[in-house]
Amino acid sequence: MAERVRIVEVGPRDGLQNEATFVPTEDKVALIEHLQDAGLAYIEVSSFVHPKWIPQLADADEVFRRLSRREGVTYAALVPNARGLERALAAGVTEIAVFLSASETHNRQNINKTIDETFPVLEEVVREATAAGLSVRGYVSTAFGCPYEGEVPLERVLGVTERLLAMGVREVSIGDTIGVATPKQVRERFAELANRFGAERLAGHFHDTRGTALANVCAALEVGIRTFDSSVGGLGGCPYAPGASGNVATEELVYLLHGMGYATGVDLDRLVSAGRFIQERLGRKLPSRVLAACTAERMA
Amino acid sequence: MAERVRIVEVGPRDGLQNEATFVPTEDKVALIEHLQDAGLAYIEVSSFVHPKWIPQLADADEVFRRLSRREGVTYAALVPNARGLERALAAGVTEIAVFLSASETHNRQNINKTIDETFPVLEEVVREATAAGLSVRGYVSTAFGCPYEGEVPLERVLGVTERLLAMGVREVSIGDTIGVATPKQVRERFAELANRFGAERLAGHFHDTRGTALANVCAALEVGIRTFDSSVGGLGGCPYAPGASGNVATEELVYLLHGMGYATGVDLDRLVSAGRFIQERLGRKLPSRVLAACTAERMA
Repeated sequence: MAERVRIVEVGPRDGLQNEATFVPTEDKVALIEHLQDAGLAYIEVSSFVHPKWIPQLADADEVFRRLSRREGVTYAALVPNARGLERALAAGVTEIAVFLSASETHNRQNINKTIDETFPVLEEVVREATAAGLSVRGYVSTAFGCPYEGEVPLERVLGVTERLLAMGVREVSIGDTIGVATPKQVRERFAELANRFGAERLAGHFHDTRGTALANVCAALEVGIRTFDSSVGGLGGCPYAPGASGNVATEELVYLLHGMGYATGVDLDRLVSAGRFIQERLGRKLPSRVLAACTAERMA
Repeated sequence: MAERVRIVEVGPRDGLQNEATFVPTEDKVALIEHLQDAGLAYIEVSSFVHPKWIPQLADADEVFRRLSRREGVTYAALVPNARGLERALAAGVTEIAVFLSASETHNRQNINKTIDETFPVLEEVVREATAAGLSVRGYVSTAFGCPYEGEVPLERVLGVTERLLAMGVREVSIGDTIGVATPKQVRERFAELANRFGAERLAGHFHDTRGTALANVCAALEVGIRTFDSSVGGLGGCPYAPGASGNVATEELVYLLHGMGYATGVDLDRLVSAGRFIQERLGRKLPSRVLAACTAERMA
């Protein structure tokens, strides 16, 4: 039997939050339903961050309301604080995700708090979510490099990961937010993280800004990581950096994993259809190379 | 001291031969000079295939004539037959490259001969080139998958590689021509090839059609391969498959290798300038993600 790798589809959230324009709610819902039809069992649907900060996801409640849910699929959402948790609970999310950065400057830029000021906020969210019967996922951003501080010391990453796990987070996703990591660094960091906390409590979250995302996935696989975040079509490039790539594309991740003999539960053809759907709705070529190759084949 | 990895820059040949339009000779020459300024020590300049087959490179003789050569740089060209070798010798190439496919159908489509019919032609070229004091590189195309036959048996790859080396070829570049390989397959095939023929006589030639090229480079590095072909900007997508990616981008390869602690002799900033130059001349966004990221940074 093929070994299983879990895929956390973050396109509807991490992808669409970076679009320059608001994607209509019905398109978001249709995308999520395409993704579950393709066999994705974990979908990060949206974010309950205040709409002032991420207007692209202001319709999070409505997306959850309209969704036709499928048995066995986790519908998650990002939650920054207690107010966000209230909305998430009302929307009926399956799991929430909390987040902070390993880099002090990035955390201040992103959350407007120091890392130390962030922990009590997250602890309250995790405590209340757990009391309400929800599990919690954690994100550590800029776990390799930071746009302001350069390389982020591994000790910082270990420290914030430890605190997230200690507060009751189920799994921590270690993010190369700006896509600077290379496989040697990934192998070293994940080996140490897995050694301290267990590979089964960690996920890899790679951006393909410099084309290294799949190579980084392979490096993490080598040290036992079996959960990866990815985004259909490779959605998620920064709107202020045209041409820059976003999250590793789910199509590319699935192609790689199947080629290496892992099972994902995902049907690649249906996944490409999902990518094609959102590509057509957005009206621009998405970064996923598998999507481009399959589309080219279809036109040839 | 950092371990050295050799880069064979194939953009001016493998890249530009796939452009839909003819790139002016002066732009080709300028591109090659940009590349040598960036520190690339091996540049495949053009091809002496009959212009009827590859009109984009009909000016091969003229490109060599106009080039300001630099000490220590290898200026290579593809040579299909004795007539091509005559032109290559007259042009003053440093090394020639001969080629065939591991897949029978692809070889017939590409060269209009069976593999068995191809060998005598290549043997004549290698013999005469060697007699004239030139070294010879060999390419094995479709060494992983073939668009007509699917997965190509490893035995076929071993067989053609052995015959190329036996006829006096210095190094054989093993090509994933259609970009279907994944790291497990790459590691297994290169391990067996290196075991039979020595890693130092082999090179990896990966296309990024499905985003797996850098992951495949890492897999080949693990089994001792230290020479890789790449193309500035990621030039080389098939003109009949718009959106499909070409050779692994030299910028991405260099970024990866430096990040992993290897030395390449290439200055990444200057290489990005070379990529930007040809991107502007071609007037379309090239696939290289490092090029896109650096260009976005410059605009931000």
